[in-house]
Amino acid sequence: MEVDRNGLEVLGRDECLRLLAFATLGRIGFTSGALPTVLPINFHLDGDRILVRTGRGSKLDAALRNAVVAFEVDDFDPIYHSGWSVAVTGIATEITDPTELDQARQQPVARWAPGDEDAVIAITTELVSGRRIIADSLATRR
Amino acid sequence: MEVDRNGLEVLGRDECLRLLAFATLGRIGFTSGALPTVLPINFHLDGDRILVRTGRGSKLDAALRNAVVAFEVDDFDPIYHSGWSVAVTGIATEITDPTELDQARQQPVARWAPGDEDAVIAITTELVSGRRIIADSLATRR
Repeated sequence: MEVDRNGLEVLGRDECLRLLAFATLGRIGFTSGALPTVLPINFHLDGDRILVRTGRGSKLDAALRNAVVAFEVDDFDPIYHSGWSVAVTGIATEITDPTELDQARQQPVARWAPGDEDAVIAITTELVSGRRIIADSLATRR
Repeated sequence: MEVDRNGLEVLGRDECLRLLAFATLGRIGFTSGALPTVLPINFHLDGDRILVRTGRGSKLDAALRNAVVAFEVDDFDPIYHSGWSVAVTGIATEITDPTELDQARQQPVARWAPGDEDAVIAITTELVSGRRIIADSLATRR
């Protein structure tokens, strides 16, 4: 097991993608009006890309056109001091090809906000890293 | 009640800070090596600033020196389709004044990762925005 300088287990790409495949809520980091922003967003891992839906014309929608974005998913249990996180940096592109869009819309990508006018954005997963809290580290918890 | 273009309730600054005061885990968005990154991090709201601890010399630590960062906290219930999120954009500065540092270290700011060598970083909350899912929007859920 590989451990990082903070005493956390380093997760490999395959394990990171496996964790992403079972999650539905992530947080996306992007730049809007020259300022960094992080927002929660539902997603679906489709192969090795992340699919999200955005309200057309929204700030998020505008920010995700061919932009480099950060994406993060985690699951922590505060009582047992256990959990993991996966961080992705990739390129966000709107899916516009009709056939591909039809397929993408059949994926289970929910939007929390109501509304119909949405775009489907695919985020590549070139850079994936993950960490898991090691149970033994409980001894040094503070 | 103010509602945004996505049908979500807009939360005022006071309500956002109240929600932050009861949370302990957020996600921080920053730039590292010219690439956007989002990571989970424990925090404590101290007045109107966010306190976090970072492993000294870590990538996160290096990225948070007088940088503009994004911070996000949320709480969603997938079963009841309810929840809220608060997004902050502020300036991160290491606390170095000994008296201030003593006071800051007495705040309940946990680190998930083990290790002793840490810095205490304060993030200002100039820009705060929040949204809450409105129960009525359930009808348009999909």
